[in-house]
Amino acid sequence: MKDYLENCGGSPGRAAHGKALVASRLVYGVRDLLSTLFNASSPDRVIFTKNATEAINLVLFGFLNPGDHVVVSSMEHNAVMRPLRELEKRGISLSIAQCDLHGFLDPLAVKAALTPRTRLILLTHASNVTGTLLPIADVAAMTRESGIRFAVDAAQTAGVCPIDVQSVGVDFLTFTGHKSLGGPQGTGGLVLGPDVDLRPLVFGGTGSASESEFQPEFLPDKLESGTLNAVGVAGLGAAVSSLLNFGVENVAQHERKLMHAFRNGLLELPHVIPYGSENPENAVGVLSLNVGDLPCEEVGLQLERDYDILTRTGLHCAPAAHHTLGTFGRGTVRFSVSRFTTEADISAALDALAKIARR
Amino acid sequence: MKDYLENCGGSPGRAAHGKALVASRLVYGVRDLLSTLFNASSPDRVIFTKNATEAINLVLFGFLNPGDHVVVSSMEHNAVMRPLRELEKRGISLSIAQCDLHGFLDPLAVKAALTPRTRLILLTHASNVTGTLLPIADVAAMTRESGIRFAVDAAQTAGVCPIDVQSVGVDFLTFTGHKSLGGPQGTGGLVLGPDVDLRPLVFGGTGSASESEFQPEFLPDKLESGTLNAVGVAGLGAAVSSLLNFGVENVAQHERKLMHAFRNGLLELPHVIPYGSENPENAVGVLSLNVGDLPCEEVGLQLERDYDILTRTGLHCAPAAHHTLGTFGRGTVRFSVSRFTTEADISAALDALAKIARR
Repeated sequence: MKDYLENCGGSPGRAAHGKALVASRLVYGVRDLLSTLFNASSPDRVIFTKNATEAINLVLFGFLNPGDHVVVSSMEHNAVMRPLRELEKRGISLSIAQCDLHGFLDPLAVKAALTPRTRLILLTHASNVTGTLLPIADVAAMTRESGIRFAVDAAQTAGVCPIDVQSVGVDFLTFTGHKSLGGPQGTGGLVLGPDVDLRPLVFGGTGSASESEFQPEFLPDKLESGTLNAVGVAGLGAAVSSLLNFGVENVAQHERKLMHAFRNGLLELPHVIPYGSENPENAVGVLSLNVGDLPCEEVGLQLERDYDILTRTGLHCAPAAHHTLGTFGRGTVRFSVSRFTTEADISAALDALAKIARR
Repeated sequence: MKDYLENCGGSPGRAAHGKALVASRLVYGVRDLLSTLFNASSPDRVIFTKNATEAINLVLFGFLNPGDHVVVSSMEHNAVMRPLRELEKRGISLSIAQCDLHGFLDPLAVKAALTPRTRLILLTHASNVTGTLLPIADVAAMTRESGIRFAVDAAQTAGVCPIDVQSVGVDFLTFTGHKSLGGPQGTGGLVLGPDVDLRPLVFGGTGSASESEFQPEFLPDKLESGTLNAVGVAGLGAAVSSLLNFGVENVAQHERKLMHAFRNGLLELPHVIPYGSENPENAVGVLSLNVGDLPCEEVGLQLERDYDILTRTGLHCAPAAHHTLGTFGRGTVRFSVSRFTTEADISAALDALAKIARR
């Protein structure tokens, strides 16, 4: 980002001079990296948005028509539920496939929810509250022949779970730049399958087809109006490049190892109530818990004040998930790990929780 | 931006720990600076978007209903025209008030275009092709009693023209961060008047009202879903803070002085055809020209290759403006100045143009 700001500053596609061309190449290079990461059918089908939420809205508002029916899980984030509650007012109907108390989804629950009008299934790849992985490959396989399109919210998994959109059969993959991809806030996007199309959410200048007052039909321009966040994309590119060198599977292994240690340590602690999958093999490195009857905010406060451990407390913008887990009334304390978290960090978290629980 | 990335990294509104609170305060501080800059009725009515284009789309899609009529000028950018061409398909009608060959707009042309169904007038404050200022105060005064709402696209003027939304009577002011405000790409926004409301363009998590699957009704959260570009907002805040210290009127004076020198110098150059207002008092620091019969791309290429001067050539995502100027067929070479441009830069540009014209 520093390099882009100090040495470039050009706006991709907005002029023919050298700095604009450098910016255009930079952005194309990041499309290409993301296309490699997710095995997209073409870099042009990687669309940049300001965050995962915009990408999800682009899918929902750009694909669904009045009369269509959608199936989601009961672990979805409000980035999914709030646009869908709005779309219900506009003639789209919704079914919610119930997950169990750990956040697991039986693919048959999705199948049971299908109707002749179902046009889209949208699942979070992993819960942002518990990290529990949803069976996206099984659901994709089940619906492959049906003509129903499949969208996956990979906000929690992009960069930590290998995702091959073509072999799994994901028509719309949405991601954020600022979680496990390691990029800055203000970045995110969408990978479009080879045979799907969307209406734009935002219309405007694209630096292309400037003679026309109508939105161009080609990708990525059709879905990327206005000045791009080139500095953010530069940061995302540096992060994804580093990630690809390190290897997504290596990140996954590292995080699973840490989560095994964390889960096992929690079993020793009386009064600590962990949620989600008991087996870290079925989750990403996110874990929610409560301590006895303490309000989650109080636990979060003590963790920060006394142990310099930062967590997110409350409902995590995911009321549906907390209803599923039975924690809607009180919320949870959410821990998360990354490629840069160490075993010493896990021990410190366990020690801190032991002391808080003992009080 | 460096300070935010190295020392904070928190997500505004997304947790209760210290770094999230620092990020929340940072973002609120930038809302407050922008509110001061534009004299908004409240910092909560400053909405952040990823660029000016998203802000304009938010106004048009969030305010207009089928049956409504809109008036714009013939100098609008495709950030305005492309969403409006889409809205025409959805039952909104459009009239275009014709500007003259220099890009000037007679407020009476707007008045003549009004119908009983007119609900919104949207004008660019200054053309991105010629810099010509449009008479926003006169149009606002003319329509103040009518109940028609007034939107201003300040992409070219925010940071270089003093704008007081309350005293002028602007209901929706849209701006970008990366032009005269001096901030990074990926930032922009909207100032909402005290008695107007919009439907969201993007629905989702806001870090607030997390118990509800419905979008909150309060501002700014209602219109800002998903993770904010906090690092971009940090950069925008540093820029606006510096700008407020320097003084917007001082920027304007500096740019006008440079443009007088540029315009006067161009008068001496045979074959150089400048467009837009002959008097820089009626424009911001943007100037389009052509050289004889040379393609604009050729002039731009020579300016960069031989003189290290970067311009934008072509149609500038504004076909309507080029139709108005009579340059739609060939485009123009666009120069622009900033607070950091010097008189020596202007002399260098004039020398370069003289040599290109002489060839």
